[in-house]
Amino acid sequence: MADHCYRLTLSCPDQVGIIAAVTDALAEHGGWITEAHQYADAESGWFFMRYEVRASSLPFDLDGLRALIAPLAERFGMDWRLTDSQVPKRVLLMVSRQSHCLADLLYRWRSGELPFEIPCVVSNHEDLRGFVEWHGIPYHHVPVQPDNREGAFATLDELIRDTAADTVVLARYMQIIPERLCERYPGRIINIHHSFLPSFAGARPYHQAAQRGVKLIGATCHYATAELDAGPIIEQDVVRVNHHNTTEDMVRLGRDVEKMVLARGLRFHLEDRVLIHGNKTIVFG
Amino acid sequence: MADHCYRLTLSCPDQVGIIAAVTDALAEHGGWITEAHQYADAESGWFFMRYEVRASSLPFDLDGLRALIAPLAERFGMDWRLTDSQVPKRVLLMVSRQSHCLADLLYRWRSGELPFEIPCVVSNHEDLRGFVEWHGIPYHHVPVQPDNREGAFATLDELIRDTAADTVVLARYMQIIPERLCERYPGRIINIHHSFLPSFAGARPYHQAAQRGVKLIGATCHYATAELDAGPIIEQDVVRVNHHNTTEDMVRLGRDVEKMVLARGLRFHLEDRVLIHGNKTIVFG
Amino acid sequence: MADHCYRLTLSCPDQVGIIAAVTDALAEHGGWITEAHQYADAESGWFFMRYEVRASSLPFDLDGLRALIAPLAERFGMDWRLTDSQVPKRVLLMVSRQSHCLADLLYRWRSGELPFEIPCVVSNHEDLRGFVEWHGIPYHHVPVQPDNREGAFATLDELIRDTAADTVVLARYMQIIPERLCERYPGRIINIHHSFLPSFAGARPYHQAAQRGVKLIGATCHYATAELDAGPIIEQDVVRVNHHNTTEDMVRLGRDVEKMVLARGLRFHLEDRVLIHGNKTIVFG
Amino acid sequence: MADHCYRLTLSCPDQVGIIAAVTDALAEHGGWITEAHQYADAESGWFFMRYEVRASSLPFDLDGLRALIAPLAERFGMDWRLTDSQVPKRVLLMVSRQSHCLADLLYRWRSGELPFEIPCVVSNHEDLRGFVEWHGIPYHHVPVQPDNREGAFATLDELIRDTAADTVVLARYMQIIPERLCERYPGRIINIHHSFLPSFAGARPYHQAAQRGVKLIGATCHYATAELDAGPIIEQDVVRVNHHNTTEDMVRLGRDVEKMVLARGLRFHLEDRVLIHGNKTIVFG
Repeated sequence: MADHCYRLTLSCPDQVGIIAAVTDALAEHGGWITEAHQYADAESGWFFMRYEVRASSLPFDLDGLRALIAPLAERFGMDWRLTDSQVPKRVLLMVSRQSHCLADLLYRWRSGELPFEIPCVVSNHEDLRGFVEWHGIPYHHVPVQPDNREGAFATLDELIRDTAADTVVLARYMQIIPERLCERYPGRIINIHHSFLPSFAGARPYHQAAQRGVKLIGATCHYATAELDAGPIIEQDVVRVNHHNTTEDMVRLGRDVEKMVLARGLRFHLEDRVLIHGNKTIVFG
Repeated sequence: MADHCYRLTLSCPDQVGIIAAVTDALAEHGGWITEAHQYADAESGWFFMRYEVRASSLPFDLDGLRALIAPLAERFGMDWRLTDSQVPKRVLLMVSRQSHCLADLLYRWRSGELPFEIPCVVSNHEDLRGFVEWHGIPYHHVPVQPDNREGAFATLDELIRDTAADTVVLARYMQIIPERLCERYPGRIINIHHSFLPSFAGARPYHQAAQRGVKLIGATCHYATAELDAGPIIEQDVVRVNHHNTTEDMVRLGRDVEKMVLARGLRFHLEDRVLIHGNKTIVFG
Repeated sequence: MADHCYRLTLSCPDQVGIIAAVTDALAEHGGWITEAHQYADAESGWFFMRYEVRASSLPFDLDGLRALIAPLAERFGMDWRLTDSQVPKRVLLMVSRQSHCLADLLYRWRSGELPFEIPCVVSNHEDLRGFVEWHGIPYHHVPVQPDNREGAFATLDELIRDTAADTVVLARYMQIIPERLCERYPGRIINIHHSFLPSFAGARPYHQAAQRGVKLIGATCHYATAELDAGPIIEQDVVRVNHHNTTEDMVRLGRDVEKMVLARGLRFHLEDRVLIHGNKTIVFG
Repeated sequence: MADHCYRLTLSCPDQVGIIAAVTDALAEHGGWITEAHQYADAESGWFFMRYEVRASSLPFDLDGLRALIAPLAERFGMDWRLTDSQVPKRVLLMVSRQSHCLADLLYRWRSGELPFEIPCVVSNHEDLRGFVEWHGIPYHHVPVQPDNREGAFATLDELIRDTAADTVVLARYMQIIPERLCERYPGRIINIHHSFLPSFAGARPYHQAAQRGVKLIGATCHYATAELDAGPIIEQDVVRVNHHNTTEDMVRLGRDVEKMVLARGLRFHLEDRVLIHGNKTIVFG
């Protein structure tokens, strides 16, 4: 089992003395750094950092640590966040009819492999209710018809708030999330797209791939933004296909890549390993 | 060393009895099949085949085998080809200033790993003359300026004919081959594109990739057609990148993928393992 | 959905005319070959073949086809098998306490992705009963203590016979199967070993891997034989690890490789794509 | 082009305040950290660090920086090293008859991709003299016969000293380096072994792999130690093979993996990214 630790992530314009200032402040109070990552992007002149500090090494709690870092954040113009490894994120899962990503995440959840809470599953279909409820997780059927899209996504928005969800995962949810919703929850809505983006954005990517005759197919885990399939990429992977593989085979092979890429991307997110900068991510994996 | 063999490749509308007809004809004359591949594409109803027959097992030479197959080809409406493994293809190499693909192919050529002949190297720059001539290979400098493109490619066309080149390899040749030339040599001009197509077609793909924040970069070996970077794909591969990698790093990492993908794709081509069907390839690898 | 087809697999000493004889016999009765693979191993002089023939194209059933092939099998000294794609194999699953491979296979089973029947799950622990029974599958708890090993495996043997299981899958079953049982069911007991064999055979392979400081860890799907972890390999794969990964991380990362490798290997087996020759496999994937 | 920088690598027992002490010292003098990696190994209680500091940001040269770090090294019990990115390492290359790794390294050297100097190439055969000397690099033929092994390796040892080589690369050198020599140059002799160690150590690994029927073959770049093929691993990779691949094919496919793995491993070494701890490496790649 991982230690109880606090996770500090931050980004700011790069300059001399940032690491020194943060580590000095920690060392002064006996803060034991168990994992440390920094990255300075020379092109943009931006600095990124993620530290894990053993909770038991500090003489104060998360608020105390927050008070320690706040003046530094002010001084260096940091965009920063502090989280507690023992407070799992609350992840609202959204699905349509395909269950492979959902089943994979639920397995990792119930086996304790991925530490998160699932306040509820939301779907535009009834199909997966039984499977979800067997896990003791509430299932909300929110149908999306052409004439009720606005209402449906207002309901979703309420559910996000009512359940205090930190994160929404579109686990092969086949509806397009309205721009306004994406903008309301930046860096908090994670999508798995069934292609190696930017190739084959939009609908039926495996059919597009089969059409083009590519030799590898892939999947992309990214944050949803107002522009469809164009948000910051967290993780990608591919699998080899050959002429024997029909489009149907690609769909099957792709499922495994989708599951793995989503699970890896979500792990990075849950452990606060992803820092977003513009339309790109720094992943301290 | 591989046996001396004849390679029969063919495609035709699928029907019952094709394999039987071909193997019967071969067996009747004692033809020993050392490698056999078939593929029936259910979607298009097309059949593809590649056989290697040990030359010494037949009582006749390549022409005799041709005479044996011709009536079958007629009967089944085959698009077919017969080659001799001991007659290496003649490959005209084209380069600009970057030498990594050229150096890689020349190494595989002089070590005998890839069996082909190089009648000459053509470049729009003088830079690589010394390196090429050290190998005893003629080097033709054919400059391409905005006002002489037509003349330059007429010269290239002449070189292809004069040297009896079977194949032209664009080993990071940075000029666009005119449509007319691509159409004159279908399935005979091989390009290596420095991206995982269809992503990042056109110029500066690594810069495009860095801009988009992808987590894998790739390379694509394909036949050149009239439409830029859109021809039938022979081989592709990718390599993982992360936030530490600058665009310059991607260029470096990409070089290794380009070399490998081109060498693999060219091997398939030299051994007559690639069958083109529409804009896709069947690779009997 | 795949067509209803018959699958013919065979191996025999290589000679001229095998393919011709088989395809002639099929063509004479209108047999439509939908997938065809052959391989001639020059080193051992052995020939291998796997054909799929569309059932509806033949004027007779599986027995008729058997009667057609039998004389050829006699003539060429074939080791051969004929199966019906619509008769799913019966796979007895064995597990201990770890559930990731079991959960993965059950998902692929209930979603219809992998076509097989599960007569029962056998375990030396009670832990996974609830999960298995939720699927409506019988669960047999067969404890294995040092003083009852013989009895326990006699019970297993009875279960294999009583359930008419074609195949036994050791889905992270942590007991060693007795030699006698392995020998009774050659090519029918599939194991997933959590290392890239032959490295780290035996117990605690991830600890061995961490100790040795390897940069990739892997998993191996193989047929169980009398010698532990030494049977014919069906499929393998690896995943990259780095210094950040503890042994515990390797166990977690390894789970995903194990699941994938077992699922791929089992698919090959279920579709009769694996031919065993000595201690090696030919996989017509 | 990369900035001129100093590289500080160190390891010591982990405790609170190490990063703070180092970064404080640097910040006090305006030291601009362009790349920073740390790793704390919880199991062994050891701490590892690699920093790049822009040379032009400091008011002193390498010796000044050394004087700055020395007291900290003393205080924390550090095993440390400081290098200048503009002082390329001197790498003595050793080969036998196979040239693929040599050709690959020479290409990366002459294209400037890998920054190192080559004082000479040493071989137990004459075969590659012409190719090496074309590059303007001295070639020493040091034959190794059963009755002169001691003398041959004494000559090698002299060459290492006379040429002030930092590093020796065994680029498919087919003789076993004496234990004494390995012990004299710990962490300075790099070998490429043509298998995925610890599988198939020793002679003819591809033949061993073909014998065992593995589905992936690999290569391992490691530091040579007194025990054959058992030293700390720097980098590994694999490539898929199938039943079509003869042992000869494996040798060919393996060559590409060997080249790539050696080039990547050597890059890590040249850039001081490899820290050795016991028989394992930490690679800050």
